[in-house]
Amino acid sequence: MNEKAPKKVRKSKATKPKPEAKASKTKTSESKIPGKKKVLVLGGGFGGVYAAKELERLGRGKLDVELVNANNYFVFQPLLPEVAAASIHSADAVVPLRQLLRRVQVRQAEIMGIDFDEKKVIVVQGTRRIPVDLYYDELVIVLGTSVDLKRFPGLSEHALTMKDLADAHRLRTHVIGCLETADVTDDPEVKRQLLTFVVVGAGFSGVETVAEMRELVRRALKYYPNIKPEDVSVYLIEYANRILPTFPADLAAYATKRLTIHGIEVLTGVGTKSATGTAVELTDGRVIPTSTIVATIGNGPHRLVETLDLDMHWARIKTDRYMRVPGRDHVWALGDAALIPLVDDPKEDPADYATQTAQFAVREGWQLAANIVAKLNGQELKPFAYKSKGSLASLGMSKAVADVYGFKLSGTLAWLLWRGFYLSFLPGFAAKLRVGVTWLLNSVMPPNIVQVQAPPPATRYIHYRKGDKVFEPGMLIDGFYTVIRGAFRLTIDNPETGEHFEKVFGPGEHFGERVLVRSALRTGLVVALEDGLLLFIAQKDFTRFARAFPFLDNYFKDYIERTFGGLDKSFAPGSTNAKTELETLP
Amino acid sequence: MNEKAPKKVRKSKATKPKPEAKASKTKTSESKIPGKKKVLVLGGGFGGVYAAKELERLGRGKLDVELVNANNYFVFQPLLPEVAAASIHSADAVVPLRQLLRRVQVRQAEIMGIDFDEKKVIVVQGTRRIPVDLYYDELVIVLGTSVDLKRFPGLSEHALTMKDLADAHRLRTHVIGCLETADVTDDPEVKRQLLTFVVVGAGFSGVETVAEMRELVRRALKYYPNIKPEDVSVYLIEYANRILPTFPADLAAYATKRLTIHGIEVLTGVGTKSATGTAVELTDGRVIPTSTIVATIGNGPHRLVETLDLDMHWARIKTDRYMRVPGRDHVWALGDAALIPLVDDPKEDPADYATQTAQFAVREGWQLAANIVAKLNGQELKPFAYKSKGSLASLGMSKAVADVYGFKLSGTLAWLLWRGFYLSFLPGFAAKLRVGVTWLLNSVMPPNIVQVQAPPPATRYIHYRKGDKVFEPGMLIDGFYTVIRGAFRLTIDNPETGEHFEKVFGPGEHFGERVLVRSALRTGLVVALEDGLLLFIAQKDFTRFARAFPFLDNYFKDYIERTFGGLDKSFAPGSTNAKTELETLP
Repeated sequence: MNEKAPKKVRKSKATKPKPEAKASKTKTSESKIPGKKKVLVLGGGFGGVYAAKELERLGRGKLDVELVNANNYFVFQPLLPEVAAASIHSADAVVPLRQLLRRVQVRQAEIMGIDFDEKKVIVVQGTRRIPVDLYYDELVIVLGTSVDLKRFPGLSEHALTMKDLADAHRLRTHVIGCLETADVTDDPEVKRQLLTFVVVGAGFSGVETVAEMRELVRRALKYYPNIKPEDVSVYLIEYANRILPTFPADLAAYATKRLTIHGIEVLTGVGTKSATGTAVELTDGRVIPTSTIVATIGNGPHRLVETLDLDMHWARIKTDRYMRVPGRDHVWALGDAALIPLVDDPKEDPADYATQTAQFAVREGWQLAANIVAKLNGQELKPFAYKSKGSLASLGMSKAVADVYGFKLSGTLAWLLWRGFYLSFLPGFAAKLRVGVTWLLNSVMPPNIVQVQAPPPATRYIHYRKGDKVFEPGMLIDGFYTVIRGAFRLTIDNPETGEHFEKVFGPGEHFGERVLVRSALRTGLVVALEDGLLLFIAQKDFTRFARAFPFLDNYFKDYIERTFGGLDKSFAPGSTNAKTELETLP
Repeated sequence: MNEKAPKKVRKSKATKPKPEAKASKTKTSESKIPGKKKVLVLGGGFGGVYAAKELERLGRGKLDVELVNANNYFVFQPLLPEVAAASIHSADAVVPLRQLLRRVQVRQAEIMGIDFDEKKVIVVQGTRRIPVDLYYDELVIVLGTSVDLKRFPGLSEHALTMKDLADAHRLRTHVIGCLETADVTDDPEVKRQLLTFVVVGAGFSGVETVAEMRELVRRALKYYPNIKPEDVSVYLIEYANRILPTFPADLAAYATKRLTIHGIEVLTGVGTKSATGTAVELTDGRVIPTSTIVATIGNGPHRLVETLDLDMHWARIKTDRYMRVPGRDHVWALGDAALIPLVDDPKEDPADYATQTAQFAVREGWQLAANIVAKLNGQELKPFAYKSKGSLASLGMSKAVADVYGFKLSGTLAWLLWRGFYLSFLPGFAAKLRVGVTWLLNSVMPPNIVQVQAPPPATRYIHYRKGDKVFEPGMLIDGFYTVIRGAFRLTIDNPETGEHFEKVFGPGEHFGERVLVRSALRTGLVVALEDGLLLFIAQKDFTRFARAFPFLDNYFKDYIERTFGGLDKSFAPGSTNAKTELETLP
């Protein structure tokens, strides 16, 4: 916060009294180079980076190119499973956008909206959170897709995804955390659940993730003396009748064989029905107890793209063959977010459209840059046309499958090809060198089983199946629960006095409010009477809030008195042996 | 949650009816090797790792050694400033404990308490949070120290620290975030604040951190075209009259000169008075606007050690010369947590005690292991005795100061010595190789300016100085505020209707509740009328809570109606242009 900023905002408001800009909010940012056309590229994936680079190169002196992305780095997505398995450093699967795009203005910002009439994009950047207007002459939308798991109850809340760097890092941390606890727990059921790993979806990402995860666990086991190899179960679940649907059938069969040899149970023709924090339920009724579900399914449109009121099909923005968005002047779309026809009269057939791969996105970026420059020069645009050169998938343990220029390859040679291909494709010399060196060193290195834990989120939704326990006597208190859906029964038994307390909680009701008073052990047992949903709030955050807010604090004191008849009496069986101090006010 | 666990807990309760264990909670874990003595080592820093390693070596066949640590890795603290500057990967400054201690049982767990009478340590591990009892024959406390900034109002909440890996990573992410925003902001005051970096405390850690941070910024600047080198200010604040108090005065003078040449303003003889999110106030009254305060001061006892009711001095556990804790049989302490006399009759003089450095901790670990084995064999214990071999501090830009075996060295040679020394000291071949290779590659590598942002905490305390703005019109709504201390004035002016609203909020009152309804722009200005403290709750978490909890939702609806006379009317000047969708229920 500083003294001058608001004056400035007011001034800019006064000097620019646009009638339609009754929102007195945005600061204005314009092309810094007068006379040049401003091209804004939204999104820093393969398509965005290659489009921006080529736009700068072809349009040097005429175009002012700016790329906006939520992160300041480009993610080399094909290597994310390697990051998840700690085969490479997380920093090596990404390249700073500013280093890739030396002559392009890079802006790390969150995109709030697009005003097509005003030809501006509204972004928020940094900590001050004052929206900024970015005006454009040509706009390129390359925002990719998002993960959409809404169709599978519980999967959004309980599955890990493999979309960005944070996901890969989270998966690795999670898997190592499971091994750490499994090594020291005395409870065989808990151990089994911790050592069961499930990957849902057997496209590229699913297959490579399950293979790399298997390898991480296999290599790590020698450091966990209390875990035997046969204690570990790994599942790959695919709804289609075979894995790797975009590959030739014989390569997919080879891949299935390899994965099975590694001890991965490949289940095809079966989907995921629902998930909780402790199990996944399949469409065939089977319930697999697990602490680790990785979902590589469910592509949906980018959150912002959804709100733009553009003509969409298959959750992608329809474009013409030149990648222009029909009905919106000066707007282009490409990459996974766009549905680009490869023929003049496309049918309801995916083969008539560009596929959602990095290979295509790069070529789309080049063609789009050429088309924008051609348009500004009054030249003719060219339709996008490209034929896939093939595909590669790593299977772990130095094996892969490859289908390149029609040649089918499997095994170690395919794996070397896979490494070489990705190394050559990885943008930037520094990244190539670092990943190459890391790969070389890996053969002599122990696996990196360092677990850097992130603090758990303050609030989270937790799904329960009928019969699941929420908590049980003897657990350390960790937070407060509110019922969103379902019914949950609390029972407290005091073995010393024979006292018995029982209460059923429905939507809007809550339990665990004792976290406000002290951190000790649960004395009650809470069980889900039907499938349900709870909102969990961590003790620290809940306590801070309730204490700061006398209204809430009083409510809970009254509630506890009314419901349990006083705090200390009702919770008599509780031990203070493991009591921790509550946070003090700063 | 699974079905069998609670039965098991009940069973173990029934079969072991210890009268003193009225707490029906803990599961029991004992030495798995009958006939062996169990030695528990609490803490995995230098002292703990070297003690456990030596205990296992000397006591093989007789001792069952287990090390308990909150993280599953050992942190090589001297390299944390290099991690913060992205000179090395964060994974390379740490080594998995299981790889360092192949024959020692390693347990990643949180220590809840110690029961000296029962000779057990109570820990919580994993996600199930059922406390586990670990029984010991000999207990070694090596828990280090914690950062205690309570004496400086606001510093705990607003300063970054440099104690563990997460701290180093956070600092790096933060600095790069400042550069990203400074590069695109149009507000010169905000830019200045973002480009001012303050390090408090000029011991080893402070000097190395400020030097490395300066170097990161210097190397990164070429990628931020809108930041000029002269826009950047870096301060090093030291309360003593010179930096590096443990070094000879001439080396400290050399270090000061080098830091100054790098553009670091070294302020000595001045302390820190207080801090907010936007400035630090010094004891001479000067206020430096900054977004980045790094505190390397304020060593306090470990949170757990504080609760143990042991004889403490200078916030350290008193021991005898053999590292035994007086009055507690079978309990030993070493490392930074312990105050170990070097002479039989120590005076009130730090020189009479072991210093808190890695050098000392390693030797303490060795001697302690020998003493425990001697004790069990009925042999004589040896007092701890060691003389420092010297010290080294890196100054960035390939310069350092060294004081080794009485020889004083400065400049590039000292820096090479520093690198060689730390490389040789880094435990484990893999880590040595990786750090060595990274250092070699660094000379040809661009700086790693990738910023992997962690989600901000859901609740946080924010200090304000009189006159500070909390928010202003045009900012995107991000959360809800409750007043803990002080008075804050909200004013809303509608320029179109001329309407004016004003209200002062005191402790227990709140503002920003509109986040419940939509995500749009602030229409009001909130200013601190005196120094104060607010609790901030992020929109997502606050909204989830209020919605799940009808009581709270109704309270806010009433409140808004009562205070502002209806939501849409009162907030008329707000624009929905930058409106985002609120989260939907799963």
